[in-house]
Amino acid sequence: MTLHWSPRSPFVRKVMVFAHEAGVVDRLRTVRTPVAMTKPNHDLLPLNPIGKIPTLELPDGSVLYDSGVICEYLDTLHDGPRLIPAEGPARWVELRRHAMATGFLDTLILWRNERDKQHALPELLDAFALKTQHALRAIEAEIEDIAARPLGLAQVTLGVVGAYLDFRFADIDWRAACPRFAAWHAEFAKRPSMMATVVAEG
Amino acid sequence: MTLHWSPRSPFVRKVMVFAHEAGVVDRLRTVRTPVAMTKPNHDLLPLNPIGKIPTLELPDGSVLYDSGVICEYLDTLHDGPRLIPAEGPARWVELRRHAMATGFLDTLILWRNERDKQHALPELLDAFALKTQHALRAIEAEIEDIAARPLGLAQVTLGVVGAYLDFRFADIDWRAACPRFAAWHAEFAKRPSMMATVVAEG
Repeated sequence: MTLHWSPRSPFVRKVMVFAHEAGVVDRLRTVRTPVAMTKPNHDLLPLNPIGKIPTLELPDGSVLYDSGVICEYLDTLHDGPRLIPAEGPARWVELRRHAMATGFLDTLILWRNERDKQHALPELLDAFALKTQHALRAIEAEIEDIAARPLGLAQVTLGVVGAYLDFRFADIDWRAACPRFAAWHAEFAKRPSMMATVVAEG
Repeated sequence: MTLHWSPRSPFVRKVMVFAHEAGVVDRLRTVRTPVAMTKPNHDLLPLNPIGKIPTLELPDGSVLYDSGVICEYLDTLHDGPRLIPAEGPARWVELRRHAMATGFLDTLILWRNERDKQHALPELLDAFALKTQHALRAIEAEIEDIAARPLGLAQVTLGVVGAYLDFRFADIDWRAACPRFAAWHAEFAKRPSMMATVVAEG
């Protein structure tokens, strides 16, 4: 399988950490496919018209995206414990937390794009800051229950969230606001899956 | 169940059309919860820190989002044919197409926000236009296979995509570019689920 990849995309990293944890990373061949909101990748668009990575090409020529769909697919390729519960309340909690963490990443990416503009819209910057406050509060309130569950998609995505905050939002002192999330993250960041996908500065 | 709702959100409409098709719409109590990118809803943020609708509150106090998770949950509440295939290749095709249609809606919403700004970024407007071209091309290429499959999440989302293009992007002559999608949409728009959720101008 070919994964359209870039070293600094948090959604790509989510898939890579997930693949490591699921034990299927050796089946992924990564190709560097740079994308940016203002610079669509013309080679990627015929595969994924939304122009985002990760995008996964399967051996039969079919294509999968977005990152959540790719993770769910990878979770069917191994015989270990599932990283996404198959059914029942545990599934809905996992998927809701994944949607929270993924939506938080989306918010952070849009925030970063907006604040870099010459004419950033103050109301939009305020809205992103407010959502970030609420997201951090929600994670801090839930992290102990999240940590008590089997390793899964929500933990993987929150591992990436913490790392992305460090990488792109060093000005937000998220550890001071979220001591429990910070303590959990310090341990999670030591996992081989996270160590193998550390984001290079640049 | 309480669905945080707004009449003009395409993601809310997706859930409502899906609920009609799944036969569970009577179980949803809708409450009007306006949100905008620049105006977060302070009552919604404690339930969903990303501040988006639809957000579903369950009787036990738990909360579900985003729209895809809500649809998957609703699909477990009825005994009819599933609108999201449970497994196998049909599932991955359905979820990939749902991701395409949902990502297209995200693109259109960001495009609309950007073009309304006093200082819209030309590169960003161009990128949204290019992704829209590719998305319409992909839908047009796939619509016959989509239409040949049992009614499901991809069809529901594409039904909403066509209606949203009409509502917010009347300047794009998508029917001329996509005659097969247009023919399919003309029929799909007659379904009771679509008729019951028509978007009022305003």
